Amino acid sequence: MYPLKFEELIASLEKLPGVGNKTAQRYAFSLLEKSHEEIDAMLEGIAGIKEIKRCRICGFLSDEDTCLLCRDDTRDNSTIMVVANSQDVVAIEKTQSYKGRYHVLNGLISSSKGIYPDELNISSLTDRIDENIKEVIIATSPTLDGEMTALYLNKILKDKNVLVTRLAHGLPMGASLDYADDLTLIKAMDNRRKIENE
Amino acid sequence: MYPLKFEELIASLEKLPGVGNKTAQRYAFSLLEKSHEEIDAMLEGIAGIKEIKRCRICGFLSDEDTCLLCRDDTRDNSTIMVVANSQDVVAIEKTQSYKGRYHVLNGLISSSKGIYPDELNISSLTDRIDENIKEVIIATSPTLDGEMTALYLNKILKDKNVLVTRLAHGLPMGASLDYADDLTLIKAMDNRRKIENE
Repeated sequence: MYPLKFEELIASLEKLPGVGNKTAQRYAFSLLEKSHEEIDAMLEGIAGIKEIKRCRICGFLSDEDTCLLCRDDTRDNSTIMVVANSQDVVAIEKTQSYKGRYHVLNGLISSSKGIYPDELNISSLTDRIDENIKEVIIATSPTLDGEMTALYLNKILKDKNVLVTRLAHGLPMGASLDYADDLTLIKAMDNRRKIENE
Repeated sequence: MYPLKFEELIASLEKLPGVGNKTAQRYAFSLLEKSHEEIDAMLEGIAGIKEIKRCRICGFLSDEDTCLLCRDDTRDNSTIMVVANSQDVVAIEKTQSYKGRYHVLNGLISSSKGIYPDELNISSLTDRIDENIKEVIIATSPTLDGEMTALYLNKILKDKNVLVTRLAHGLPMGASLDYADDLTLIKAMDNRRKIENE
């Protein structure tokens, strides 16, 4: 129905995750409203992705050999937080409550998806553990794959002279108790803490 | 937080309609999984938009001077259906129930958005009306802007020797009567038809 070039445009946009034909059409029509300069700027932005690498040290996104965070001398070298993806680093950084180093696995061990430890950025993690590292915080999501990955990491780190911790599980802040699922409630009860008197 | 090239990519994707920072990030990470060849194919698809024109006759999208539909000799030259956008042409064509010509206004008259008739593809419509045209079907949406545009078109076409019709308003097929809004119910009652005995 549409001219060939337009169909090709729609097909290109359908490659984005969760974008079906209808959404791709909507995107295509909005691009049609843009000037050639705006389209060129967008093409340049997308083409830039070909220059993005993974940091040699931690695996986070970088446009140089090492990433911004690994190059930052002000950060605490004694802790490493292990996360699944680069998005997680950004989420933690937004809290401004962690000043240590990161290690990005770029995935999780998954029996259902057939992802094995050797496909992840794990060996470079064990290489990073030396006498300076006091604590490794495993910050994978509390999902099946996240838990499995945490168990595996704990196993390979246990011979190293380092404290291995895991982010706490419990009720999310601001949520209603009766909306929490059973597993979360059980974890919240198991991990209950004494209220400190000040 | 992210490397500059990645932030630029996210900014480019945020230009798409309804795409906020979160969705743009999701798109950006999915593009990161793709090979350079796939990215190049996508860039080519998007760049193709710069070659898309509007048909000289009807205003529909085209990569030549005239569009596929205007070049089609098998279509009925005696009726013109007037629609707001190219998407509407595709929607009507999908029904396979109309074999006449189209005219795409590329917008609707809108007092709220400040769109006036001279900004739309209207003058070329009146130029197309000659003794061969028997009927002009106004197929703008039954919204405020659509109704206003239909009234305007009816006014400028009334001196031409041509039947001007409007798509019927009423209950949508398959919908429940008690979910219909008041205006639709009123229109459906006003436009009630005698049941034909066969």
